[in-house]
Amino acid sequence: MPTFTSLDVTDVRFPTSRTLDGSDAMNQDPDYSAAYLDLRTSSGESGASLVFTIGRGNDVQGEAIRALSHHLVGRDVDEVLAGIGRAGAAMIEDSQLRWLGPEKGVMQMAIGAVVNALWDLRCMREGKPLWLLLAELSPEELVELVDLRYLEDVMTREEALEILERSVPGRAERIARLREEGYPAYTTTPGWLGYTDEKMERLLREARDEGFDMVKLKVGGDPADDLRRFGIARKVLGEDFPIAADANQRWGVAEAVAAMEALAPASPYWIEEPTSPDDVLAHAEIRRRIAPIRVATGEHVHNRVMFKQLLQAQAVDVVQIDATRVGGVHENLAILLLAARFDVPVCPHAGGVGLCEMVQHLAMLDYVAISGTVQDRRIEYVDHLHEHFVEPAIIEAGRYRAPELPGAGARMLPDSLSTHRFPDGPVWRGLLR
Amino acid sequence: MPTFTSLDVTDVRFPTSRTLDGSDAMNQDPDYSAAYLDLRTSSGESGASLVFTIGRGNDVQGEAIRALSHHLVGRDVDEVLAGIGRAGAAMIEDSQLRWLGPEKGVMQMAIGAVVNALWDLRCMREGKPLWLLLAELSPEELVELVDLRYLEDVMTREEALEILERSVPGRAERIARLREEGYPAYTTTPGWLGYTDEKMERLLREARDEGFDMVKLKVGGDPADDLRRFGIARKVLGEDFPIAADANQRWGVAEAVAAMEALAPASPYWIEEPTSPDDVLAHAEIRRRIAPIRVATGEHVHNRVMFKQLLQAQAVDVVQIDATRVGGVHENLAILLLAARFDVPVCPHAGGVGLCEMVQHLAMLDYVAISGTVQDRRIEYVDHLHEHFVEPAIIEAGRYRAPELPGAGARMLPDSLSTHRFPDGPVWRGLLR
Repeated sequence: MPTFTSLDVTDVRFPTSRTLDGSDAMNQDPDYSAAYLDLRTSSGESGASLVFTIGRGNDVQGEAIRALSHHLVGRDVDEVLAGIGRAGAAMIEDSQLRWLGPEKGVMQMAIGAVVNALWDLRCMREGKPLWLLLAELSPEELVELVDLRYLEDVMTREEALEILERSVPGRAERIARLREEGYPAYTTTPGWLGYTDEKMERLLREARDEGFDMVKLKVGGDPADDLRRFGIARKVLGEDFPIAADANQRWGVAEAVAAMEALAPASPYWIEEPTSPDDVLAHAEIRRRIAPIRVATGEHVHNRVMFKQLLQAQAVDVVQIDATRVGGVHENLAILLLAARFDVPVCPHAGGVGLCEMVQHLAMLDYVAISGTVQDRRIEYVDHLHEHFVEPAIIEAGRYRAPELPGAGARMLPDSLSTHRFPDGPVWRGLLR
Repeated sequence: MPTFTSLDVTDVRFPTSRTLDGSDAMNQDPDYSAAYLDLRTSSGESGASLVFTIGRGNDVQGEAIRALSHHLVGRDVDEVLAGIGRAGAAMIEDSQLRWLGPEKGVMQMAIGAVVNALWDLRCMREGKPLWLLLAELSPEELVELVDLRYLEDVMTREEALEILERSVPGRAERIARLREEGYPAYTTTPGWLGYTDEKMERLLREARDEGFDMVKLKVGGDPADDLRRFGIARKVLGEDFPIAADANQRWGVAEAVAAMEALAPASPYWIEEPTSPDDVLAHAEIRRRIAPIRVATGEHVHNRVMFKQLLQAQAVDVVQIDATRVGGVHENLAILLLAARFDVPVCPHAGGVGLCEMVQHLAMLDYVAISGTVQDRRIEYVDHLHEHFVEPAIIEAGRYRAPELPGAGARMLPDSLSTHRFPDGPVWRGLLR
């Protein structure tokens, strides 16, 4: 009878600030990082997971994950995996840890990491990728995973079930289609603020030539510069190509409206994070005033209650889930259901370290078992750091190929972990010397 | 030229779960705790501060405070204290740490602890209690401390200045009056869910006899039980005595409305935290449906952007600031200004470890230099753990006496720190054996 033995966390960091990959209006010098969790058992099996961060504080995130050890260590693996929804809920309800959120920030991401590691372990045992394992659960089994507290004013258990039941017919067909055609993607690779015009132009051409049918550029620096960069992109890609803009929370309401009026001639496909991710009412006001430009947000939205309000207030046209921001698979399932309930498309945030690898499972679950469509939906893609994963995200002709290896996507190569361990791995020993 | 030398954090915990002090509908077994910060300098001066938690995770909170060391260690103390607003803003804007919030949870509370420790140090140097030091700053100096990003749709810099300037006349008179009469308080001491009826009844009598003119009871357990306990309180205190109810986030919208309809015959003075602290729209809906019962919230509201929305949406009748939940003095100043802008009274949350000692300074600042009134305002009081502080909060005839020692209120006695240090202080060595 195997038991959980430890929550081993490795502080993994990549020195990306040296190249300005990932630079935007609010995050000038990210070192893409992961608090990497290896959830170990007495049988030698393990569940892998991570929380993405951008450098400093990755150690704090690791401590937060370790602080959940008492929920699992010593417990029977079979029993926990059989009641995986309950195991996640118990961490959310931990009456002492709850004070540190509640349900937000470092502790919520830590809970998400543990939930995701449990699913990874379950996937390994059942020999399936996460998207498929979840998509084959019954509507009842899926709803059991969701914490409906604070959601029932917009979605009861019955309504959630109804959404899932509606998509049961056609699941097999969509699974086959997904495996054949993949899931649509868009790329942010060309769009970082720190790149020169020449580099951006070259990367835009490459993106189009590789088959992407949508790109995203960072904005929120100097408005004239934003418009100029959009102009270059329009010249390369043409008038009708969807080019989204991402302000990374740079503005207040008035600034956002002014900036989007200035950028309107370049027809941005959407404006992402125009203001604080906490500001539901400001998103709603901005959306109203810049229509028909669409508003997207989500990568920093900290839980299902905030997504609920963004949808209630008609504040967003696009919901951007993130694999490691909220309380894991269970909370993201709640958010996917809310989006379906309000008929708003989900276009997941990705990039970073492992976010593409992880979040693709959730988008594919959405297609097979929740919304039942890929209409207006694309997963973000950024072309770096994939080589460190056991099963890297694969893009073919601008689409994510469905992952087939067992797992939830976060498992990294042992050599990558040891090489980039902070501060004592060889990469950092060299840089910090 | 003194410099900062370290951010020393002590994990202090009190085994309060043994007595059910502090028990409520969501927090059944708190061990009142503090991540206690001693901000040390090369001259031997220090700034004291803390983040209140309820047990597990207090170590994670401590790690988060230590993660801010690079912002201060090695820097010139005089220079930092002269630009204390800028020092706080730099931590909020730390582009890598920001990812862990942004502006919420463990990292925001850590920033608050450092900001508050800087003010404590400045108070020690100037020989003044925090409330007085702040209340003697000019409107311009106060506004310089506030981060107006994301607030300007409801309050511009000019509007904030105007609020402060309006209260400049009469400051000296209010300071004198505060020192003479103190600041109104209410007590939660009798109202914890874990107490027997007999204990509650005795404590209610004592509260009235001590001069309190308002009390608060925890609710959110069994509705019949809530009504019964309110009935006991009404019998002891009479029909017109303000008795507030605190649900500690227990309900969704429908449950909150039903529970308050059931409790309405007992005329609760307000309902506190009827639902998730993140749910602005639910608070607004509940308030609309249970009027004229008032709605209060704030002890878990994680930043000024959330308070702004609660006020914009007319979701609250009472703003409850907390000394250690948000980004310290600076963010609480923003919240006090927002409340004044919307003409909503502030009744601070207190209790825990050191919250009474700390938050009284902010309420007194509000009286002297912001709202200019104590009308409908009271600071919460709970009667435990005060003996561990250098200057314990003092209640006389149901009012907080204005603190007079230099400092921001969080400084604990060295013996209390060493005795309750977790897990190796003598109190815990005994209990954990």
